[in-house]
Amino acid sequence: MNLIIDAGNTFVKFAIFEGRNIVFQEKVETKDFCKAIKMMFGRFPKVSHAIVANVGGLEKKDIAVVAVFCKVHQLNYGSKVPYRNCYATPKTLGVDRMALATAAFYQFPNKNTLVVDAGTCITYDMVLGIGDYLGGAISPGLSMRYKALNEQTNRLPLLQMEDLLDFIGNSTESSIHSGVINGVCCEIDGVINQYRQRFTDLTVILTGGDAQFLSKRLKNTIFAHSKFLLEGLNYLLEYNKH
Amino acid sequence: MNLIIDAGNTFVKFAIFEGRNIVFQEKVETKDFCKAIKMMFGRFPKVSHAIVANVGGLEKKDIAVVAVFCKVHQLNYGSKVPYRNCYATPKTLGVDRMALATAAFYQFPNKNTLVVDAGTCITYDMVLGIGDYLGGAISPGLSMRYKALNEQTNRLPLLQMEDLLDFIGNSTESSIHSGVINGVCCEIDGVINQYRQRFTDLTVILTGGDAQFLSKRLKNTIFAHSKFLLEGLNYLLEYNKH
Repeated sequence: MNLIIDAGNTFVKFAIFEGRNIVFQEKVETKDFCKAIKMMFGRFPKVSHAIVANVGGLEKKDIAVVAVFCKVHQLNYGSKVPYRNCYATPKTLGVDRMALATAAFYQFPNKNTLVVDAGTCITYDMVLGIGDYLGGAISPGLSMRYKALNEQTNRLPLLQMEDLLDFIGNSTESSIHSGVINGVCCEIDGVINQYRQRFTDLTVILTGGDAQFLSKRLKNTIFAHSKFLLEGLNYLLEYNKH
Repeated sequence: MNLIIDAGNTFVKFAIFEGRNIVFQEKVETKDFCKAIKMMFGRFPKVSHAIVANVGGLEKKDIAVVAVFCKVHQLNYGSKVPYRNCYATPKTLGVDRMALATAAFYQFPNKNTLVVDAGTCITYDMVLGIGDYLGGAISPGLSMRYKALNEQTNRLPLLQMEDLLDFIGNSTESSIHSGVINGVCCEIDGVINQYRQRFTDLTVILTGGDAQFLSKRLKNTIFAHSKFLLEGLNYLLEYNKH
C-alpha cells in the first residue's frame, strides 16, 4: 500500500492506494499533520511506501515522522520521471505539475494531452503522445482573483464564488462575478483552442478543486477528473521505488 | 478651460481641456497633489471648472484646495449622466466606469459600444446605441495577476510584464508570462465575442494603461484609445456645469 501526501500552504491531503485504487482519503490542516499520520498508520499498517509532494506547508521534522513508519520518497526535481522533460528549468518545475504530467503520460499513452488544473492557480501542462512534457502556463485561480480584486483595490468587496446569471453584470457584485468566473471560462476555452490548433487529436483533462464548478461552464469538450494529481503522485512513487 | 482630476490609489492624473482638446497632462504622486494644483493654476489661470474622480487617494482637504481656484464638481453617484443608467446598484458604480460610459455615449452616438479598460482592473462596460448603459464586468488587470501569483503562493516569483514568445511556457517564468498575458488576451477576445454574438454592429474600444501592450496581441478588431477616460470626465464636467 502507498501513502500519498500532497501538502499545500494550509492543508495537507492524504490518499492511500491499494494498487490503482484509492481506499482512503483525508484532508487536514498542516498543524494536525503528525496526529493524522499516526492515526493512518494505526489504521493501515500495510502502508510500506509514501511519497511527499510539498509545496510549502511541511517541515523536515514532519517528513521524519513519516519515515518512522515506512520508506519515504520526497518528490523534487531530482526524482525520476517517466516522460521526457523538455522544460528549460526542470529545477523550478512544481511537484504538482510533475504529478499531472505523469498521470497524463500513463493514463493517455500515445495521446497528445493537455492537463488544466484549476486550483489556487490554474496550470496548463502539455504532454505529447511521444512522451515529451513541454510545459504550459500558470494563471491565477478563481479564489485568487476574487481575493486580488479586494486586496489590490480600495473599493471592491471580497466575494465568494457563486453561480453566474449573465456575462453582463448590472451591479458591482455581479460585475465581479462575471469578471472572475466568465473571465476564467473564456480564458480556459481560448487557451484550449490554441492547443487544439497546434496539436492534432488533443485530449483535454480538467482537474483540481474548481474543476467541477467550471466543467459545465466551458464550451470545450473536456474530461473532468478529480483524482488526477493523486494518481500522478502514486505513479511517481511506484516509478521511484527502485 | 476645464481641469480633469483622476485620482487613483497612488497617483493622480491631471488633464486640462480647452474645448475638446487636451492642452496639458500630468501625473503626480498623491502626496504632491497640492503643489501640482498650485503650479497648474499658476500656469493656466483661465481654468474655470474642475471635475474630481476620486477612487481613494484624495481627502476632503485636497479637494478644498482646488475649490480655492475654481468651481469644482466631485463626481459621484448623484452626478447627472447623459446615458440611461440600467445598473441595478448605481450607488456602487465606479466613477471611472461612469466616465467610460459617458465617453462611449458621446463619441459613438447610436452605436452599440463595448469599452474595455485595461488598467489595475480590466473593466467591461456596455452602452447601447439607444443610450442605455447596461453594466459589464470587473476582472483583475495584468499587474494585479502577476502580484497575486506571487503574494498568494509560496513559490512563484514576482515578474514584470514582458513580451511573450509562445503560449507554451517552458520555464516557471515563461509559464507565468503565458498564464498572465496570453490568459488576459484569451479572456478579452472571448468576452468580446460573447458581446458580438448578442449585439449587432458592435464597436469595441480598448483603453487604459495596458491598452497599447494588449492591442497588438488581440485577435478582435478593436479601436485603442488612450484618452477615453479623460474625455469622458470632460463630458461629465460639461454636463454637470449647469
